[in-house]
Amino acid sequence: MEKGVALSARSSIGTATAWIDRHVARLGAEEIRLAGALGRVLAQEVAAAEDLPPCDRAAVDGLAVLADETAGASAYNPLGFRLAAAGAALAPNTGRLLNAGEPLPEGADAVLPLAYVEASAAGRCEIIEAVSPGFGVERQGVQWMRGLGLLRSGRLLRPQDIGLLAAAGALRLRVYRRPRVQCLLPAWNGAAPAGEERDVNGPLLHGLIERDGGIVTDLRHVERNLAAIGEALSRAADADLILIAGGTGPGANDASAQALRASGELAIHGVALRPGETAGLGRTGAGLPVFLLPGAPSSCLWAYEFLAGRAIRRCGGRNPALPFPVRAMTADRKIVSDLGMTEICPVHCVGDDRIEAVPAFAETGLAALAAADGFVILAEGSEGVAQGSRVDVYWHEEDGSDWAGRGAETTG
Amino acid sequence: MEKGVALSARSSIGTATAWIDRHVARLGAEEIRLAGALGRVLAQEVAAAEDLPPCDRAAVDGLAVLADETAGASAYNPLGFRLAAAGAALAPNTGRLLNAGEPLPEGADAVLPLAYVEASAAGRCEIIEAVSPGFGVERQGVQWMRGLGLLRSGRLLRPQDIGLLAAAGALRLRVYRRPRVQCLLPAWNGAAPAGEERDVNGPLLHGLIERDGGIVTDLRHVERNLAAIGEALSRAADADLILIAGGTGPGANDASAQALRASGELAIHGVALRPGETAGLGRTGAGLPVFLLPGAPSSCLWAYEFLAGRAIRRCGGRNPALPFPVRAMTADRKIVSDLGMTEICPVHCVGDDRIEAVPAFAETGLAALAAADGFVILAEGSEGVAQGSRVDVYWHEEDGSDWAGRGAETTG
Repeated sequence: MEKGVALSARSSIGTATAWIDRHVARLGAEEIRLAGALGRVLAQEVAAAEDLPPCDRAAVDGLAVLADETAGASAYNPLGFRLAAAGAALAPNTGRLLNAGEPLPEGADAVLPLAYVEASAAGRCEIIEAVSPGFGVERQGVQWMRGLGLLRSGRLLRPQDIGLLAAAGALRLRVYRRPRVQCLLPAWNGAAPAGEERDVNGPLLHGLIERDGGIVTDLRHVERNLAAIGEALSRAADADLILIAGGTGPGANDASAQALRASGELAIHGVALRPGETAGLGRTGAGLPVFLLPGAPSSCLWAYEFLAGRAIRRCGGRNPALPFPVRAMTADRKIVSDLGMTEICPVHCVGDDRIEAVPAFAETGLAALAAADGFVILAEGSEGVAQGSRVDVYWHEEDGSDWAGRGAETTG
Repeated sequence: MEKGVALSARSSIGTATAWIDRHVARLGAEEIRLAGALGRVLAQEVAAAEDLPPCDRAAVDGLAVLADETAGASAYNPLGFRLAAAGAALAPNTGRLLNAGEPLPEGADAVLPLAYVEASAAGRCEIIEAVSPGFGVERQGVQWMRGLGLLRSGRLLRPQDIGLLAAAGALRLRVYRRPRVQCLLPAWNGAAPAGEERDVNGPLLHGLIERDGGIVTDLRHVERNLAAIGEALSRAADADLILIAGGTGPGANDASAQALRASGELAIHGVALRPGETAGLGRTGAGLPVFLLPGAPSSCLWAYEFLAGRAIRRCGGRNPALPFPVRAMTADRKIVSDLGMTEICPVHCVGDDRIEAVPAFAETGLAALAAADGFVILAEGSEGVAQGSRVDVYWHEEDGSDWAGRGAETTG
């Protein structure tokens, strides 16, 4: 709850974002095995090292034949073929039974499906259908030719990409390093005081950082004073980024901003974002980006999503934008917003294509968000959304808690 | 590539789906720590055990006062207050400096922000603004009242839910067990023959199962014969589900379906899904659900998504539907489809709101999918999508590989 907090000059989200994009660089790459690559970000292009298939091969289970020799075959005019063993090229009027995927033998140019092949005497069969050259054959290179670009650098690897890389024989890959993040939680005496929130920001940030591909290398409470926070900032050698959650306000005990200023550079303090307006950012003397996140959990969340999270996603080579699908929907009721602030408003569906604000968001914090289907961003220059107008809704992942009610069950 | 495969009777996707929903039950629950709960599915409702905040507390850094005593204060008429130490109730004309989040002392009913408080002599201050009762106070229970339902059973836990649960003191939770999945990959001689695909389905299925919250307990090659597959089916004691990838066709060496029939029940063999039509499903003698997935990787993928994946998502308490956001878009060109088959067609964007089919999908398999932005499902009763008509697009997760080109950078 940040009522009444007044920082001298708030930066716009655009200014803060531009600072991040200027000062937070993508990390270097590391080589990993394909088995651990799901959810990692490619730091190389992957091109096909060879054709796929590498040779003409059977597309179906059937009899490999020379198509010309099947001319005239039908159920009324079965043609006799010898069955050849594996290995040699096919002799005239000879076929070989293949499983789908097996290479076509020399002398064959088609595969007659098993449905048209009838066993007769031992080592012989009859065929009851004629085929043309290429029938039942998967041609060399039809899936891809050697040299074809399969995946671009920057790809967030999905399960089917893992399959594709396996097919291409790319069993080791270069991916961007996962950002290592240190989280400091200033508290008055090294722990949350009586009556204050429980440690909510620690678990919250851990989950957010994990979602965005980062690794929490250290998450700990520090005393809420200049010396303790400054000391922690100066020792953060094993991290790529530092997050400080709490102590960001203008009060006497809000030492986080002062500690960052003393330690290096406090580039921005105060952001025109609600919730989240006491957020800040800067760098340690050693040049590590530091993000100041307000201590109230819902403010901490949104300052993370717009600022720290953007930096972490960017470091790791991910899309730095908010990691939610966006859907244009209609506002069922007016949503009011203050000029000069980027405001976040959790919304829920009230119909197929209509949303309304979750009531009393400012006061109910994370509980309101839990009840929401998504959120809208009310831009700095906006006074809100008129009833009936279209608005971009950032959509939360679907879950199983009420799919039965929503009919998602029927899809697929 | 499954050209020419003809199974005697193909089941519709609807029939196969109904079988899964009838025979695959949600697993039991287990208790875990909150720290490991991201991405797990709640198996209980979580209600608030106490009010939040648990008492009236400071919403801002400031001076806790009795509001009536501030009447008339202004910059022209500063009022003097004594500063009280922590502990006791406030005496008349006394205030106490609080940090945001600290409990309001007895005798106070408002918190005057620091901006309106000026230190004067030691132990004294002057205030330059009047406030009404409740100002700067976060009231007991304003975030939630004891007993309020916070999260429902079935919730797929997001980072902000983890924060919410921490705030509610729910440090241990009941969640659905993760489905344990055994994958069998029949091959002719225990390994992929020369010229056949590399082991693509193993890594592919591993990634898909992980995405859907399952655990691969065992993934191994077995010989492609009735005895070997039957033996593996009879020993699968540590799994909740079994997937067999390969050997599902009607050919002589396609022993997977026969092995399942011999081992228990082959309920469905052949599904009107393309790619994926030789898929099947049934149960072992011990009642474990078994899914037969075609060996061609793109067929394996889609049979997984529609059948095995649905079962895994269902077992684990997730939404069983396809795990992709859906967006209605316009077909820039006609997309052709066969009546009687549910067909999957990868598509890519050709404008803000327009898609077209990725060409030559049937032949290029996973490579076409890698180039796609999503896919459309052409239903069994459909002959395709007319140019200019609206169609539901199942959307792939955004990644960083071309966000610069797409302008996603500007969002957030």
